Amino acid sequence: MTDAKGNRKLKPSQQPDPFTIVRIVEKREDGIVISGAKAMICGTASSNEIFLLPGTAYGSDDEDCALACVVPRDIEGLTVVEARGPSDGRDLDTPSGYEVPETGVTQGWLLFEDVFVPNERVFLCGEAKYTGKVVGYFSANYRACIGACVTGQGDVMVGAATAMARVNGLSAKPFMAKLIDMSVKNQTTFGMGVGACALGKSHPSGSYFADELTAHSNKVLVATLPYEVKRQAQDISGGIVETGCMPSHKDFTNSEYGELLQRCLKAGECSSETRFKIARLTEWLTIGGGVPGCMHGGGSPDGAKLVVRFKTPFEEYVQYAQKIMGIDEKISEPTPAEKGN
Amino acid sequence: MTDAKGNRKLKPSQQPDPFTIVRIVEKREDGIVISGAKAMICGTASSNEIFLLPGTAYGSDDEDCALACVVPRDIEGLTVVEARGPSDGRDLDTPSGYEVPETGVTQGWLLFEDVFVPNERVFLCGEAKYTGKVVGYFSANYRACIGACVTGQGDVMVGAATAMARVNGLSAKPFMAKLIDMSVKNQTTFGMGVGACALGKSHPSGSYFADELTAHSNKVLVATLPYEVKRQAQDISGGIVETGCMPSHKDFTNSEYGELLQRCLKAGECSSETRFKIARLTEWLTIGGGVPGCMHGGGSPDGAKLVVRFKTPFEEYVQYAQKIMGIDEKISEPTPAEKGN
Amino acid sequence: MTDAKGNRKLKPSQQPDPFTIVRIVEKREDGIVISGAKAMICGTASSNEIFLLPGTAYGSDDEDCALACVVPRDIEGLTVVEARGPSDGRDLDTPSGYEVPETGVTQGWLLFEDVFVPNERVFLCGEAKYTGKVVGYFSANYRACIGACVTGQGDVMVGAATAMARVNGLSAKPFMAKLIDMSVKNQTTFGMGVGACALGKSHPSGSYFADELTAHSNKVLVATLPYEVKRQAQDISGGIVETGCMPSHKDFTNSEYGELLQRCLKAGECSSETRFKIARLTEWLTIGGGVPGCMHGGGSPDGAKLVVRFKTPFEEYVQYAQKIMGIDEKISEPTPAEKGN
Amino acid sequence: MTDAKGNRKLKPSQQPDPFTIVRIVEKREDGIVISGAKAMICGTASSNEIFLLPGTAYGSDDEDCALACVVPRDIEGLTVVEARGPSDGRDLDTPSGYEVPETGVTQGWLLFEDVFVPNERVFLCGEAKYTGKVVGYFSANYRACIGACVTGQGDVMVGAATAMARVNGLSAKPFMAKLIDMSVKNQTTFGMGVGACALGKSHPSGSYFADELTAHSNKVLVATLPYEVKRQAQDISGGIVETGCMPSHKDFTNSEYGELLQRCLKAGECSSETRFKIARLTEWLTIGGGVPGCMHGGGSPDGAKLVVRFKTPFEEYVQYAQKIMGIDEKISEPTPAEKGN
Repeated sequence: MTDAKGNRKLKPSQQPDPFTIVRIVEKREDGIVISGAKAMICGTASSNEIFLLPGTAYGSDDEDCALACVVPRDIEGLTVVEARGPSDGRDLDTPSGYEVPETGVTQGWLLFEDVFVPNERVFLCGEAKYTGKVVGYFSANYRACIGACVTGQGDVMVGAATAMARVNGLSAKPFMAKLIDMSVKNQTTFGMGVGACALGKSHPSGSYFADELTAHSNKVLVATLPYEVKRQAQDISGGIVETGCMPSHKDFTNSEYGELLQRCLKAGECSSETRFKIARLTEWLTIGGGVPGCMHGGGSPDGAKLVVRFKTPFEEYVQYAQKIMGIDEKISEPTPAEKGN
Repeated sequence: MTDAKGNRKLKPSQQPDPFTIVRIVEKREDGIVISGAKAMICGTASSNEIFLLPGTAYGSDDEDCALACVVPRDIEGLTVVEARGPSDGRDLDTPSGYEVPETGVTQGWLLFEDVFVPNERVFLCGEAKYTGKVVGYFSANYRACIGACVTGQGDVMVGAATAMARVNGLSAKPFMAKLIDMSVKNQTTFGMGVGACALGKSHPSGSYFADELTAHSNKVLVATLPYEVKRQAQDISGGIVETGCMPSHKDFTNSEYGELLQRCLKAGECSSETRFKIARLTEWLTIGGGVPGCMHGGGSPDGAKLVVRFKTPFEEYVQYAQKIMGIDEKISEPTPAEKGN
Repeated sequence: MTDAKGNRKLKPSQQPDPFTIVRIVEKREDGIVISGAKAMICGTASSNEIFLLPGTAYGSDDEDCALACVVPRDIEGLTVVEARGPSDGRDLDTPSGYEVPETGVTQGWLLFEDVFVPNERVFLCGEAKYTGKVVGYFSANYRACIGACVTGQGDVMVGAATAMARVNGLSAKPFMAKLIDMSVKNQTTFGMGVGACALGKSHPSGSYFADELTAHSNKVLVATLPYEVKRQAQDISGGIVETGCMPSHKDFTNSEYGELLQRCLKAGECSSETRFKIARLTEWLTIGGGVPGCMHGGGSPDGAKLVVRFKTPFEEYVQYAQKIMGIDEKISEPTPAEKGN
Repeated sequence: MTDAKGNRKLKPSQQPDPFTIVRIVEKREDGIVISGAKAMICGTASSNEIFLLPGTAYGSDDEDCALACVVPRDIEGLTVVEARGPSDGRDLDTPSGYEVPETGVTQGWLLFEDVFVPNERVFLCGEAKYTGKVVGYFSANYRACIGACVTGQGDVMVGAATAMARVNGLSAKPFMAKLIDMSVKNQTTFGMGVGACALGKSHPSGSYFADELTAHSNKVLVATLPYEVKRQAQDISGGIVETGCMPSHKDFTNSEYGELLQRCLKAGECSSETRFKIARLTEWLTIGGGVPGCMHGGGSPDGAKLVVRFKTPFEEYVQYAQKIMGIDEKISEPTPAEKGN
């Protein structure tokens, strides 16, 4: 969905470099040719097909960006550049099971250079007037669902923090107030996502779309609550997870001083290896490669707030206040000062 | 529902004063006689019938408190003592329309002294083992619904704050970030309440009960978010609403200096009377009589957290962490030290 | 300090009603005559002298508002209208000791109608160019000190909440995490106020002025942290304090049902009278007449944020980032689009 | 200061593995021999001397851990194992100037194996009764100062976020509310640290110690506010910084597709290289290697809260509440139930 965008103050047709936004560069009888870059696209490495959507709503000047289509990942002319995230160096040189996650995170740039897409794989081809709706439908459902996504991550954090307390040789009970608080936050984005779906409406096409005010409010929570859950996981887990003092696996198993390190990492009844692994997981979840995504993934919280603004009936709420107090006089925005004043 | 409770550390049967908890004091062939006090019961003044539920789960020692029944409000032996809240003195001596709300808030104590309830109005009569379920069913639904209740109040606060900006002679636009934030918070308790209902389950009886983890998490939010919404309403509304400097209606209309006060209260394009009314409403909503209820109404947030604790599968979440890192060793709570150590 | 202000979009000289801002209406040989209204002035009722300062910085068009002087409270032409706050009705009809506080809160409007002030009591008389400095000096010191003011109130709330737990028949210990958190917040506004003073500078006059960035940042905290302290006091204190269900003293001592109420209010080892008093205090501190003041008293948090903005060296901080990364290119605000685009 | 600690439930003398806490293993006439591990020690790599302090207060059973001394970094028998943090792999393979920071972060384990320390470098040698004071003095001053430390980091984040808005092609102005909020938070930990110093006391030795209640309250803030500042920096900076989609420098300069990536990274008036660098800095500060430290560095917030609890005069505050309401009755913790009940 997300294009590289170029200069954010300019429309696609005004961009000095057209490659910053994926667009139709040629219409043929049997299909279209597209060119340009999509950014921060996750999961491409493990996908068979890539579904392209317009990155935002476009006006008639930018018809060539009004594009929805599906291409196979291995299509001619597409270069996928995987990003370089925190801890990926460590991923590569650590034996399986001591680094997180075995299966990897993929997040990348998609560079389309004159890629041909046959007509049967094209769903939007220049109909700019529908781009706003496409983005609106997609983002409402996405932002309802991302609530559950971060809840799942948060549940792992609750589990990791509980385990950290124990591998540190302590009980999880003195941390129960924090763990309950984490659980409340996890359940909030989940429950509100479900609420957005339950309040949604079915479309004549048969599709079902989440309620926009609720879904976009949820995106605002998704951009704040998981950060607090991470912070609380660090709070419970102790310095080993948060001060960046975890040794490498290579040192941990070093023939000279590895055994000493292992003895030092043993704290409770679990083995030092288990403590090493849980600490690495918790660090990864709260500092390293496992952090990204909930702020701008699926769009920015500021974008969501614009929808909240648009969907909140402020004037109706002013009427509530007026009705309670029996005020008939209209309470309006101030009259603009005349020009020249 | 809520009993006066007496000494919170003692069970009903241990209370020095049995009157602190409503209980069955006599079983007759045609009905029961009840005695004791219910506290913080709202709406009684405008009700025809009062439905009594047990205040908490009871064991077999406290069967006489396992009581659900319905009594008319005007029944012999019942004394209703309305509470004395903030600003109720002002309510009484201010002309209608200048004080909030015209219809009043009722919150009171119900003192039952040997009240007879005929059998056909009794639904639980000593069956202590069901009291936990009754309380659980009630509180899950209540705490799903209270989300929407505080949202409605919050919508009025959004309206009042928008109106205050205008009657202060300003536009609401510079306060939009705060207003949007208030709207997100209002929608959160609403959306999550809907989510709790959507995740609920139907009971063989035909009743439908909200999901407990979501509903009780919502109660925790209900005890925090509305406070922030109130604070933001004060922030937007200015000192007139928050520093306790609103004059009385008697001074506002005083024949000597009332006109001066009215001139001073005029700020924007609206009349000083409209500003007086909106300021009084916003003060009432955020400082005075309109504040109470969202913290302990429907039970305390600490009680809700106990349910969250009980319903969060901590051990399952520990398993998630173990599975990701391939840990087979059991990560348990530490073995208790032996006695004598 | 605070004037009634009138239309906030207009300068004093543009106000339709000049009375909304106190100003010099006549300069005589032996003094000046002033007229206009000051709003939300606390403590007047118990003061001998009133020190007037300009409400904001004025330009040369508004020289007549550049006024600092001292007048006795009982001066001819001054009308003080005390405000009508929450619970003041209750204050008047409750015996001493059962309502808070015995000594009362005073907050009022000062209406100056052609008040003569002799020259020896006038310190600023039309010198508009100094008004900005006067306001700046005053507000920096005020906002350093208000930190300690709300801490004192917060300490009472910690005490009241601790006492409430006990009069409810419970120990304060299970609430310790909340009480510690309240203490941290109280100490924050106090410690930061001290920090603002310690970072301050002495003026050639011999006066000493607090550091502006720190003092105004403290004002932002003062407009948020005490609200959380109040909320936590309610959380600990239970429904009796927060749901508006406290009976009046008249009912509490009623000859018919007062004894029953007293029995119901007895919860722990303390008398029901003690519980009544502590509950009334805590309600008053967190809902009623004891709430106002920390948001806009001493000026608004939005005003403080403007000073924070002005005193934060954003461009210097951009240089830090550039230096770390070895960037020579200037990172500027975008060039404005040309007219007509 | 921090020892590896071993089993946190056991005292040093009870540890199954004595190496987990640095201790005196032999006293000779000319000095002592020490053994054991210190963990999460930063800056060792660039230090000439290492000052060891006891990790906590010890009783007389643990005299051998009551140890303060100074050793050169290169002393015989000391092995320093640097930790493996997020993004350190990237540090090594990226040309200077494209990764942060050039100078590196050092955080490591110190393994002391029978290290001899001559008497003139030993300051505490078995005097267990002073260990509590040593830790108390150190931590009060440390936790006053760490306020300024995180402020400096926060100032860089304000600068980086301001720069990110601009290199994204936007103005920093629409983000001003967030930037001001970040500045207030930065100034809070700084101003409160200064306050803790200003409220401190001089010791007969000539040393000066910060006020404990203020300093430890500051540690609690240091464990929360910087997380919010980081989150806000991500919020302003956009997906490029937060979703983990930054390409490696190797891809950025790749001969085949590097130029396309560079064109895609160009957004505003600055070069794509500048955007690459500022984005990498901001990512590093908020997700990667630049994150660790403010939660448990200098001790845990839970440890600080214990000091806050100890230093808050709860009973005095209860007296304030009693005095206001004229209550003579003592409000005590409930009498414990008798055994067997």
